[in-house]
Amino acid sequence: MSIDVLQQKIRNMKNPTMVGIDPIQSLLPEHILREAYAEHGETLKGLAQAYLVFSKGILDVLKETVPAVKIQSGCFQALGFEGVKVMEELIAYAGELGYYVLMDTMRGDIDCTAEALAQSYFGGVKIGENSYLPYPCDAVMTNSYLGSDGIMPFTKFCKEGKNVFLLAKTSNKSSREVQDMLAGDRIVYQVILDLAMRWSIDLFGKSGYSEIGVAVSGCHPGILGKMREKYDRLFFLVPGYGAQGANARDVQYAFDKYGHGAAICAGRSILYAFRKMGDSGENYAECALQAAQKMRDQIALYVRIL
Amino acid sequence: MSIDVLQQKIRNMKNPTMVGIDPIQSLLPEHILREAYAEHGETLKGLAQAYLVFSKGILDVLKETVPAVKIQSGCFQALGFEGVKVMEELIAYAGELGYYVLMDTMRGDIDCTAEALAQSYFGGVKIGENSYLPYPCDAVMTNSYLGSDGIMPFTKFCKEGKNVFLLAKTSNKSSREVQDMLAGDRIVYQVILDLAMRWSIDLFGKSGYSEIGVAVSGCHPGILGKMREKYDRLFFLVPGYGAQGANARDVQYAFDKYGHGAAICAGRSILYAFRKMGDSGENYAECALQAAQKMRDQIALYVRIL
Repeated sequence: MSIDVLQQKIRNMKNPTMVGIDPIQSLLPEHILREAYAEHGETLKGLAQAYLVFSKGILDVLKETVPAVKIQSGCFQALGFEGVKVMEELIAYAGELGYYVLMDTMRGDIDCTAEALAQSYFGGVKIGENSYLPYPCDAVMTNSYLGSDGIMPFTKFCKEGKNVFLLAKTSNKSSREVQDMLAGDRIVYQVILDLAMRWSIDLFGKSGYSEIGVAVSGCHPGILGKMREKYDRLFFLVPGYGAQGANARDVQYAFDKYGHGAAICAGRSILYAFRKMGDSGENYAECALQAAQKMRDQIALYVRIL
Repeated sequence: MSIDVLQQKIRNMKNPTMVGIDPIQSLLPEHILREAYAEHGETLKGLAQAYLVFSKGILDVLKETVPAVKIQSGCFQALGFEGVKVMEELIAYAGELGYYVLMDTMRGDIDCTAEALAQSYFGGVKIGENSYLPYPCDAVMTNSYLGSDGIMPFTKFCKEGKNVFLLAKTSNKSSREVQDMLAGDRIVYQVILDLAMRWSIDLFGKSGYSEIGVAVSGCHPGILGKMREKYDRLFFLVPGYGAQGANARDVQYAFDKYGHGAAICAGRSILYAFRKMGDSGENYAECALQAAQKMRDQIALYVRIL
């Protein structure tokens, strides 16, 4: 099953990380923007093209080093259909390069909308005799504020090798306002982990982990450790590394004793590493590779993957 | 300010409702699908075209009767970029017809992604000397599981006449799993209303209502009434009417004593009214108009708009 594929890729590369693709106009290398605008004008299409070229460059250079990629759909949707068009191309490209591909939707849908979206990620949109898969990914990340009704339309594809990750505890400071509310002996974010467990029956892979995973930020190492201990069959996606403040010491608590069960995400600290390295942006891909290798090596100081 | 515009449109039409545009392939009139496929083939483009023709037909027929429209972005995104392209056209078209246009994103974003999306809805995406607005709407609905960090990037446009609605209590049965958790004397959905109030300083319109609204489902009339009483300065968007089970008697509790402060959303019960009326689909627009008029008249039995 799919969570085993992710775990195996991590073991093969000895690197439990995932690169987050979230292109931002103001941080992109100058020459990429310039060339895209020269070809398509200073338009949404031009900017979308720059996002594509930039992101492909990152994927090309990291493919031997980083096993998985998380694509932030909002960054692309913010450019309208031209952005979505290149996102589709990018998702397919990442799959071809061999990455495990997670689409980070940040959405929480139910009912026909959730069904329709699940078709577009996993099952295929059936039109007459044809089937189309605009976003051919291995997993999606959803927002579970709406409860089980927002999870079920996606989990039915878990038996076909797809994964669903539920946002539980996020990196941002104000995440505590809702997520940390304590009701009796239950905390809101923990309820999300309970939901993941409840719907995991029959969905455990050979690795022992469920096809339904959760996102628990590395910015709260105490929470991460407690949750790891209590939910030893849920795979953790751990955002917050790098630009958002978590480091290798913080995220070590996400792993089990074999160094399994988690993938650490980093976006900006890898994508825009050239800015911290004093590079003009011409060598952004090489800088990203260096940053990804450094991240891997730093985590390896704390986590040994068996 | 914008919430006043919505309230005034409602008063002018004596109709406190909002039509939800969420096209579903399996429910669309046969002839619309047939014609679109004849022109574009059985492709995502063909289906997107059918969604556009169908939705425009609904907007055309309701424009004198229904003041506002809620566009469910997920239904369009599920068709990939072709779907997003027609959604952009539809949003602009709804604005031209004079509707108050809400984009129902179901997303909860923070940080650069939220900033980028806010530009795409409200502020414009700046590229060189140009500015592009792919989704020119009056308001967005967001998921607030991430707390204030997910609200602020949008509320800064409230001073420029835009509105933000926060999902608080949804219609679906499992909404209770997370949203009804009781922490001391606070309930999770109520915390969302508290957040809306907290960020509303300086954002109250002449109608007395804040530019930041909340979505509280009509499927829980007891909750609706209690929240209306306690939060008398928050405009309520009320999903759940019709297909999801709420009726005119249920939703009356959303209004203040002047019949102000709320808009009731209905989607499927209007869009696909022809199916209940035994029509082939050829007259889907007229059937939708009849259903919308009936909804307005039924609500008027309980709510008098001054």
